[in-house]
Amino acid sequence: MSLIVQKFGGSSVANAERVFNVANIVTDTYKQGNSVVVVVSAQGDTTDDLIEKANEINPHASKREMDMLLASGEQISIALLAMAIEKLGYPVVSLLGWQAGFQTSSSHTKARIKRVDAERIRKEIDKKKIVIVAGFQGLNKYDDLTTLGRGGSDTSAVAIAAAMHADLCQIFTDVKGVYTADPRKVPTAKKLDEISYDEMLELATLGAQVLNNRSVEMAKKYNIELEVLSSLEREPGTIVKEATKVEKMLISGIAKDKDIARISIIGLPDKPGLAFKVFSKVSAANINVDIILQSVGRDGTKDITFTVAKGNAEETEQILKAYLEPMGVKEVKADTHTAKISIVGAGMESHAGVATKMFEALYDAQINIQMISTSEIKVSVLIDEDDADNAVKAIHQKFFD
Amino acid sequence: MSLIVQKFGGSSVANAERVFNVANIVTDTYKQGNSVVVVVSAQGDTTDDLIEKANEINPHASKREMDMLLASGEQISIALLAMAIEKLGYPVVSLLGWQAGFQTSSSHTKARIKRVDAERIRKEIDKKKIVIVAGFQGLNKYDDLTTLGRGGSDTSAVAIAAAMHADLCQIFTDVKGVYTADPRKVPTAKKLDEISYDEMLELATLGAQVLNNRSVEMAKKYNIELEVLSSLEREPGTIVKEATKVEKMLISGIAKDKDIARISIIGLPDKPGLAFKVFSKVSAANINVDIILQSVGRDGTKDITFTVAKGNAEETEQILKAYLEPMGVKEVKADTHTAKISIVGAGMESHAGVATKMFEALYDAQINIQMISTSEIKVSVLIDEDDADNAVKAIHQKFFD
Repeated sequence: MSLIVQKFGGSSVANAERVFNVANIVTDTYKQGNSVVVVVSAQGDTTDDLIEKANEINPHASKREMDMLLASGEQISIALLAMAIEKLGYPVVSLLGWQAGFQTSSSHTKARIKRVDAERIRKEIDKKKIVIVAGFQGLNKYDDLTTLGRGGSDTSAVAIAAAMHADLCQIFTDVKGVYTADPRKVPTAKKLDEISYDEMLELATLGAQVLNNRSVEMAKKYNIELEVLSSLEREPGTIVKEATKVEKMLISGIAKDKDIARISIIGLPDKPGLAFKVFSKVSAANINVDIILQSVGRDGTKDITFTVAKGNAEETEQILKAYLEPMGVKEVKADTHTAKISIVGAGMESHAGVATKMFEALYDAQINIQMISTSEIKVSVLIDEDDADNAVKAIHQKFFD
Repeated sequence: MSLIVQKFGGSSVANAERVFNVANIVTDTYKQGNSVVVVVSAQGDTTDDLIEKANEINPHASKREMDMLLASGEQISIALLAMAIEKLGYPVVSLLGWQAGFQTSSSHTKARIKRVDAERIRKEIDKKKIVIVAGFQGLNKYDDLTTLGRGGSDTSAVAIAAAMHADLCQIFTDVKGVYTADPRKVPTAKKLDEISYDEMLELATLGAQVLNNRSVEMAKKYNIELEVLSSLEREPGTIVKEATKVEKMLISGIAKDKDIARISIIGLPDKPGLAFKVFSKVSAANINVDIILQSVGRDGTKDITFTVAKGNAEETEQILKAYLEPMGVKEVKADTHTAKISIVGAGMESHAGVATKMFEALYDAQINIQMISTSEIKVSVLIDEDDADNAVKAIHQKFFD
């Protein structure tokens, strides 16, 4: 007998029919002799509807009251799912975040799970009950309701799996698993059977959002095997697990991130500590920097190029102009018409030429590379935004077709 | 400075505009230097909508899951009211039933409040906050959410008032207070300034439902002064308090209850214990009996007449026929075309002739009396249902005009 945690998102329980679909998946797993803990998000658009209700009354409501309001969404969905499972004739109990032992940090609307005291869940499992837990929510040390922020239900599921040493944590979504590229854009994209935590983390960071990043980090930390699969098709999904257990593919996926802007500083005086000061200014404004390239310029100066999210481009440019122009820096400019294409794969560590193969694919497609950045399991290039979809297709063809 | 508990029903917070109306009443009370604890029900039709959602999935859902579902209704309304009060610029915090310390019996959907541990409320009051509490809900000893049943928010409010020794508990409704008769039926009906707990209890039992009965009983037990008033008009309502403090009116109100059926047993053998057995049979079927009259019949038999709710009339008749016909009882019959008219008043204890005055009013209006029942502060008569409205008008005219 295994202990399996199953997580279902809001669209999976959007209406009565969908709720029964989930109830069937859950009870089928239970019938096979497993203990089952189910984590559910709020139904469909419930969270958005509640936010709208709040905005109608007070667009600047406190985050504490926002959490009080939003946490009601999962309360409704866990009760309805429990009722559906009762209807199918199985023993079941629903638990709110605090009842399931979720202790979080105090920061409302983006709390972090500090601890899951799974005693109540264990007691219900011992009574042979299917346990339905409200995802996305917990209780802080002041006994106030908190929410984990969007996507937090994934983290709730992994946290329960970790606390209870579950054998598997299944994340049900509306896609069949993790693909080598976005299947809506690349028709030949393949579903992966397996992927390592690190590859999944890179893919998540790179904009191929199937799993919430915090949940993958937590799964890696506690070595919880994840499965990403569809709640509508009954077939195996993609297993996310330790790298050593994953058959190393040369590359496991191609990701595209269009929310990228390039900031160029041309002719920065070559004084020690100046590059550090530049990035201090940027991070002081809470702006995250991604790829950084530095090259020798002319006349004892250097050029620095880096990327930020598109929404931060203008502010970054202004901050740096204000700081650098007084010291005679010729040019600070932002280019928001860019995209980042990345290939990820634990296999590339031990295979030379993976980057070359990617560059070749882009060359064949006549796509110009603006910047390159590499890590042990990732190669990213910056290109013109208009070339992004073609670039993904060309690279996919080179590696997978 | 006084501590005031204010309770608002679902229609008082049905939409954003109504929520702000309540927020204004609450903050006006707070501005006058009072500590304010507010008890709120779920918005408008929320509870009915949730019940419908549940029925769509499982009409026989467990009561435990029903409570889990329904308790979300007040969670939404307390958060929204808190947000409105934040918008008006006042310090506020919302609390769920369990956060506010409501410990209840374990019976789901009709739990009874066992204790209110008001420590958290007190802490927030000490921080000068307006405290918004979810009515209708609590937590049982298994740490499961419970609800108090319809009208339970009144009881929540009185329970907090009792636990905190509040100076006043205001129950805001859509009527201006307690009237001498139903003002929709009797245009000359007068709003009472004061009424005693006992009179209010009789009126509630008799179908003049302004306050939930349990809440009045609790207010009486802990001697909490209640005020019934309108959330839409800013004027004093009706104070409900100890009889000794109330100026004794001859009668304080006239109530009509159409949900009454008369069961007649003609010719019951005059054997000891038989009447007892008759009522045992009825109560074994969970049927409540109201007025009972017994009279000497003919040939050593007696007649028994009593009333039950209309919905129980047929079942009562069947049970008694099955039991009594074998022993030769001639006639068991149910008459569902009846209504009960009652006058209530602490003053009638010390005034003879109140009942006579009532009968005179009915005689003047040519209304036939089928049964009479009296207690220290109440006289009830059973009449034909068609005469009910005329009876109330005639009696009201006799006593008040």
